[in-house]
Amino acid sequence: MSHTATGHHGYISDKDEYLRRLRRIEGQARGLQGMVSDEKYCIDILTQVSAMTKALEAVALGLLNDHMTHCVLTAAQEGGEEAEEKLREASEAIARLVRS
Amino acid sequence: MSHTATGHHGYISDKDEYLRRLRRIEGQARGLQGMVSDEKYCIDILTQVSAMTKALEAVALGLLNDHMTHCVLTAAQEGGEEAEEKLREASEAIARLVRS
Amino acid sequence: MSHTATGHHGYISDKDEYLRRLRRIEGQARGLQGMVSDEKYCIDILTQVSAMTKALEAVALGLLNDHMTHCVLTAAQEGGEEAEEKLREASEAIARLVRS
Amino acid sequence: MSHTATGHHGYISDKDEYLRRLRRIEGQARGLQGMVSDEKYCIDILTQVSAMTKALEAVALGLLNDHMTHCVLTAAQEGGEEAEEKLREASEAIARLVRS
Repeated sequence: MSHTATGHHGYISDKDEYLRRLRRIEGQARGLQGMVSDEKYCIDILTQVSAMTKALEAVALGLLNDHMTHCVLTAAQEGGEEAEEKLREASEAIARLVRS
Repeated sequence: MSHTATGHHGYISDKDEYLRRLRRIEGQARGLQGMVSDEKYCIDILTQVSAMTKALEAVALGLLNDHMTHCVLTAAQEGGEEAEEKLREASEAIARLVRS
Repeated sequence: MSHTATGHHGYISDKDEYLRRLRRIEGQARGLQGMVSDEKYCIDILTQVSAMTKALEAVALGLLNDHMTHCVLTAAQEGGEEAEEKLREASEAIARLVRS
Repeated sequence: MSHTATGHHGYISDKDEYLRRLRRIEGQARGLQGMVSDEKYCIDILTQVSAMTKALEAVALGLLNDHMTHCVLTAAQEGGEEAEEKLREASEAIARLVRS
């Protein structure tokens, strides 16, 4: 399977699992619209937001792990500037996740 | 405008604005599915997740502020156990947000 | 006990408990200096930083709860602009905590 | 410079800079004790806690970056289980930082 030819990166460990989780997150976003529309009790809405944030965080950490295991490891084995560039990118993405 | 009769809480300052933001968040969740499906570069996906987390956070903080200005303030003016219960609930919701 | 006369705010539920926790946090900051100085293993240092961040977060949430129970509730019962100002301040502090 | 002989890991880019930052964080922890002891205004205390959390976060992200650049890259170049183990450890540390 050549990912390069199609522009794919091929690092994702279990695509169906991520898609399943993201569909659920999309459903939560739709659920929140219903709750706001019906003016449900604020605390219940906030509980849903916290659950959705945690679900998103888990997707991000999973993808980051896949990326480091696959792309960063491969780049590191090839060495040179590519490896450093990949690590710099990963560090910046981690900083954004920690701060968000 | 009687929200009590319909079970609504009437605390949300600008419902259309929240719905608009939540629809955009729903769109971001759909966009992430496309990115995962196409195996877009991990760092770009993570950047989108961070943006979506920040957007959700802003919705949560806005709703919490509306809730405190409306429900907590009202309860506090009436006093008694209701006020303490409302503050306890708000504190727990804040702790969940800070930790998520 | 007149806090007003001394400029104190008198909202802290259990000062000794907070001081005990903050002394432990100070000790953790000192411990981290020892670990960095000895170049302990990075992952162990990061585990300590996470523990310290959680301890700080717990102190912040406790103080915020005390503040809302005491100052915000009192202001709310008095009503008017003072109450709104206190809630606005609390909301801003919550936003800073959620984002940090 | 042989760190191995002394059990050091030698991955920290600028030890003095980290020590300087950690001493400032230690001073912030001491300052917070003074503020709680004097019952300073809660919102001002929370502002200090947020600043201290951000400073700690920056130290953690810096150390993580040093660790990945040094230990993870080295392990990756050697390959095998060691590389995977190092990445697994790093991912767990990142997850703790994102969640704390």
